Amino acid sequence: MIERIAILGTGLLGTSAGLALRATGYRGSIVGWNRSPEQAQTALAMGALDSVAPDAIQMAHESQLILLATPVFAVLDWMEQLAGVLDAEHLITDVGSTKAQIAAAADRHFNRPGRAAFLPGHPMAGKERGGAALADADLYKDAVWLFTDDPSWKRSPQASAMVTEWRKWVVAFGARPIDLNALRHDELVAWVSHLPQFVSTALSALLEDNVGDAPELKDVGGRGLREMTRLGASPFSMWRDIAFTNTEAVQTALFALEQRLAYLRENLRTPELRDEFDKANRFRRE
Amino acid sequence: MIERIAILGTGLLGTSAGLALRATGYRGSIVGWNRSPEQAQTALAMGALDSVAPDAIQMAHESQLILLATPVFAVLDWMEQLAGVLDAEHLITDVGSTKAQIAAAADRHFNRPGRAAFLPGHPMAGKERGGAALADADLYKDAVWLFTDDPSWKRSPQASAMVTEWRKWVVAFGARPIDLNALRHDELVAWVSHLPQFVSTALSALLEDNVGDAPELKDVGGRGLREMTRLGASPFSMWRDIAFTNTEAVQTALFALEQRLAYLRENLRTPELRDEFDKANRFRRE
Repeated sequence: MIERIAILGTGLLGTSAGLALRATGYRGSIVGWNRSPEQAQTALAMGALDSVAPDAIQMAHESQLILLATPVFAVLDWMEQLAGVLDAEHLITDVGSTKAQIAAAADRHFNRPGRAAFLPGHPMAGKERGGAALADADLYKDAVWLFTDDPSWKRSPQASAMVTEWRKWVVAFGARPIDLNALRHDELVAWVSHLPQFVSTALSALLEDNVGDAPELKDVGGRGLREMTRLGASPFSMWRDIAFTNTEAVQTALFALEQRLAYLRENLRTPELRDEFDKANRFRRE
Repeated sequence: MIERIAILGTGLLGTSAGLALRATGYRGSIVGWNRSPEQAQTALAMGALDSVAPDAIQMAHESQLILLATPVFAVLDWMEQLAGVLDAEHLITDVGSTKAQIAAAADRHFNRPGRAAFLPGHPMAGKERGGAALADADLYKDAVWLFTDDPSWKRSPQASAMVTEWRKWVVAFGARPIDLNALRHDELVAWVSHLPQFVSTALSALLEDNVGDAPELKDVGGRGLREMTRLGASPFSMWRDIAFTNTEAVQTALFALEQRLAYLRENLRTPELRDEFDKANRFRRE
């Protein structure tokens, strides 16, 4: 039923979605647009798109499903720009990393009679570096794909059918959809996604100051150090938007970890250290 | 020249050393002992040993090279017990995670005329779980193997030849030997090994408190969360000794990270966040 999909933002996530659609048998057309045209050309060359659109707004208008695959602030910008252009024939969904502000904007601009439908989404997948060239049809395999569906919103039959179809594609990609309230989403990802990222950034920056001038010594840390600092390569451009749109929950999580590290530091020679290791061991047990 | 090697402690590291010796063509005999006899039997069954010794002291006495492959406090205990038993025909080396106390004990008990030689060593390899059953002939491949050699100590020709031979085996395992002063070793590993471990433990314990009751939500974190908490599975038994024998350096590193996290928390919405990401990105650049 969805015959034309527009991918607005052909970076790592958008291009991977195009590749995954093709790999799982989507037969409609896929058109893409990117702020930097080379990224769109890369996505086209990789087979993620049938064509590159010269104009994003017109591309969205001529499609049925619009996938906003940009950082959060750009998603919010596009939502404003598309609000007056699209209508009940359209479903917009996104892959933005925080959902409270996007869900609020969806409530303001969409999901009302005569307006386009908006389904906030967030696949928990990515790489520490972005860009179309790293895209992968399997990026979403075994990942959780969060949706912050609002049950109070009464969808049109067309919108409902398109939402059902998009969720089927997500499952076809190998992802597992989970529905969450938008505020609960942001709180949860602050703990399990944003906290690990900011810790890795802080650890990497600290180590750059302390051992960065002796690169051979990085090897000493082995696999543990490589893993704990891999996310240190993540781009500021994406995380700035997350830091801005989920500030309070991230601050709560960071403060809790600071306290936890201080507790551990004060208990390096007491039996409490065993309790911390036991608890950490429990978290890692399946 | 080394015709008989004793592995005292046939856990993950000791058993892997036996397997690596065999895989790289060592033709002498390898005998092992472990406090828990099942671990020694597992090592034997895996082919890491030719035989299991009933008595560790006698085994050491009858061997030329003794590899102490236990946590740090057990290394220190064995050093005391072996001091009066071994003589200039023996070389002892170890794989303990901290080196200042072991190097000091080596100076007290060994490396003197008529005494056994002691070469403090520390391969930067391991897994988040220990035990002979997880041993691997390739465990040391591409790892750094630190030695805290003391140039002031004049080795006997026998000891020098055995040290040279052991270092050749270490290279044969695929490891890269690096020589460091013992105090510098402990300071360095506090940053690149102990800090990542204690951060992973604190993060895992914190998350166990906050999302541990909803195991399906762990999946939401994806690869980043899995990596950042993998070391959370590490056993207390090994890390207690590290916490006790490198307390000050670990406290310094933990305190520095607490301050770094607080700085990041206070700058989630300021341009300073970009500088932290830039610095972290630099650490990850090759």
